[in-house]
Amino acid sequence: MKLTYHGKTKDVYRFPDGNFLLHFKDDMTGADGVFDPGSNEVGLTVEGAGRAGLALTKFFFEKLKEKGIRTHYIDADLEQATMTVKPAEVFGKGLEVICRYRGVGSFLRRYGAYIEEGAPLEGFVEVTLKDDQRGDPPISKDALAMLGLLSKEEYETLKQLTIEIGQVIKEELEKKDLELYDIKFEFGRDKTTGEIILIDEISGGNMRVYQGDQPVEPLALEKIMIKE
Amino acid sequence: MKLTYHGKTKDVYRFPDGNFLLHFKDDMTGADGVFDPGSNEVGLTVEGAGRAGLALTKFFFEKLKEKGIRTHYIDADLEQATMTVKPAEVFGKGLEVICRYRGVGSFLRRYGAYIEEGAPLEGFVEVTLKDDQRGDPPISKDALAMLGLLSKEEYETLKQLTIEIGQVIKEELEKKDLELYDIKFEFGRDKTTGEIILIDEISGGNMRVYQGDQPVEPLALEKIMIKE
Repeated sequence: MKLTYHGKTKDVYRFPDGNFLLHFKDDMTGADGVFDPGSNEVGLTVEGAGRAGLALTKFFFEKLKEKGIRTHYIDADLEQATMTVKPAEVFGKGLEVICRYRGVGSFLRRYGAYIEEGAPLEGFVEVTLKDDQRGDPPISKDALAMLGLLSKEEYETLKQLTIEIGQVIKEELEKKDLELYDIKFEFGRDKTTGEIILIDEISGGNMRVYQGDQPVEPLALEKIMIKE
Repeated sequence: MKLTYHGKTKDVYRFPDGNFLLHFKDDMTGADGVFDPGSNEVGLTVEGAGRAGLALTKFFFEKLKEKGIRTHYIDADLEQATMTVKPAEVFGKGLEVICRYRGVGSFLRRYGAYIEEGAPLEGFVEVTLKDDQRGDPPISKDALAMLGLLSKEEYETLKQLTIEIGQVIKEELEKKDLELYDIKFEFGRDKTTGEIILIDEISGGNMRVYQGDQPVEPLALEKIMIKE
């Protein structure tokens, strides 16, 4: 098994059969020890954060599987903090697909002239380029097509999938009286079928969740969703 | 006649009949004395810049009129550096609509991971909010609809009009062996008919034009297009 990629929060190994093993690390994005899912920096290391992220990821990927939504997920080993996934090809150097239910974060920083902080949004989808150096710029359907990253048809598929998956996660959180403000996904093309599938993880590190007016940190989220 | 708005490069007066008079000033956008059409600051004042901008604006608006493309233009007085226009309502606090034929400026700063500087683009349209404080953020068709600035149908009209108008200007420049890299428009709703029309100006201050590999400054552009 070969290490193929050192990520900010995960390492990736390749199995001889073509599948991949993701190892969830205890590093979280943020700045100066404060967690921020929108950040591109490793801001803190928290004992057990990798396992907690994986437990949530496993929980949500299995929910999606029950609903017949295709993802790269095969199985997970919580002891080892690893997940086995199908091979997929990312779009260009990677896209982030964000589904928003409240106007906060970079959305508010951009469009604050037109919405109040925390204004409800009905599953608003937007795409940004994974490009730390250029600050993960937002990119439109037309620009994605023009740069050859995603056809206009693929964009519509991606958008619909995002709304569908976001809704599943939102409903799971609501069962524990939690509110999803926004969530960040990554998609890719299934190496075998070419279909667009959800890849990466679905953990507290990729979403903003509130309990009443209090943000729920990733580790606390795992406790509420899995252990309680 | 009442002064209704002090702009960076224009002052606006209201006629009793509801039309408006735009007075073109000698101030240009840029920084430290260097012209930059993408800038939000007045960077330099050049004697005659207002008249030159108006002469080009009059030239292009009259070309558009010949082609049957509706704009806010009524007439212009070059001596007084003024233009009379129909009343129009801007979208929200104003949008900038950019049509790009070369990957430069903010487009390159955002998408430089996927294109070379100056790469040809086929009349690529994008919209940004006029919001100096937030750095004129780009905004998608979906976000414009969600924020109530522009319906999806209006977005398509705006995009088509932008491509059409950009093409007219590009062709006029080509007649003088000039190449249009990008151009920035402003649109509004005609107060009488509700139709989407081109407003503001069409001058060297709103476009990047090259002669071979040399940028053509706004004043030089007016000389080439009008006086030669």
